[in-house]
Amino acid sequence: MNSDFHIKPEIRVLGIDDSALLNEKVMIVGTVFRGADWMDGVLRSEITRDGLDATEVIVTMIKNSRHYDQLRVIMLDGVTYGGFNVVDIEELYRKTELPVIVVMRAYPDFEKIRSALRHFSDGELRWEMIKKAGKIEKLVTEKNGTPIYIQKAGIGIKSAEKIVRLTSIRSNIPEPLRVAHLIATGIIFGESRGKA
Amino acid sequence: MNSDFHIKPEIRVLGIDDSALLNEKVMIVGTVFRGADWMDGVLRSEITRDGLDATEVIVTMIKNSRHYDQLRVIMLDGVTYGGFNVVDIEELYRKTELPVIVVMRAYPDFEKIRSALRHFSDGELRWEMIKKAGKIEKLVTEKNGTPIYIQKAGIGIKSAEKIVRLTSIRSNIPEPLRVAHLIATGIIFGESRGKA
Repeated sequence: MNSDFHIKPEIRVLGIDDSALLNEKVMIVGTVFRGADWMDGVLRSEITRDGLDATEVIVTMIKNSRHYDQLRVIMLDGVTYGGFNVVDIEELYRKTELPVIVVMRAYPDFEKIRSALRHFSDGELRWEMIKKAGKIEKLVTEKNGTPIYIQKAGIGIKSAEKIVRLTSIRSNIPEPLRVAHLIATGIIFGESRGKA
Repeated sequence: MNSDFHIKPEIRVLGIDDSALLNEKVMIVGTVFRGADWMDGVLRSEITRDGLDATEVIVTMIKNSRHYDQLRVIMLDGVTYGGFNVVDIEELYRKTELPVIVVMRAYPDFEKIRSALRHFSDGELRWEMIKKAGKIEKLVTEKNGTPIYIQKAGIGIKSAEKIVRLTSIRSNIPEPLRVAHLIATGIIFGESRGKA
């Protein structure tokens, strides 16, 4: 289950980002990449702001895609999408049979998260889901020395690091996530912005 | 005006595609590329189905973009967007001061176009705008031998061909247009499709 595996340079990676919290429904965008080089496809779906449907929506989006057979790994930008809609990465791995790598630009501020979750009647459940994403590992890529932080499900740390390094050719963020972010912000605001 | 110029491999190109005709307003998507390699940004706007606002909307989208200063050339997928909303490429060139290259997968069926334009009260005007896009040149790229057809404004044929060849590394369609198409179809339908 947590095994390492051989990684081809053109490994198919799905990177998923969400868009701004403007409405009850929040758009999520997936990009299918061959390694870091070539975008093969774009997926789009909607999750509920602060809902609990992110895992299910992402599983359905992936399994309905004509790229599903070719995909080898899923990359997430943190585990909370559309506000506090938490992705259960163990369930995502189990239901898609694809390993999951979570990439974060900063070490999560768990105190702040826990405090925000007090406003949710099911805050404890969400907190458990966040903790379930497991150990957070620091990773410094060759790109610019700025560390990122990763979590994982269904993949060993060596393979996860290898895939992150392989796909982070433009910045310290893997291309599938960088480009998903450009698309999600560009479509919503008229021009892409931010951290990419 | 029709001069050839020096082309850097990382020349900033904006490729624009439209989405399906599902509503009165049709989404257009622009991708800002560095040559063929790296997507720097995404633009989005709306034009009117069968309207006459495509040129103006595209000019505004480009001039409002923070990428405007860096852009060197605009690529269009034909000259009709959102049905028969014709882009006046001479005006687009004049107002943005950026050369325009029109890429087509097939030689246009002018008889069919003219016939469809009979249903428009201003069909003659649209026909004149289509003709104004000028001479159509056949271009065979190294990629797969399938020819494409190009028109241009504000750029010589040699430079236009060079830019098309430089950016057509995945198929016979330049990357900025290939990726704009993936985004436009992916966002509208939930998964990208088609000719890319």
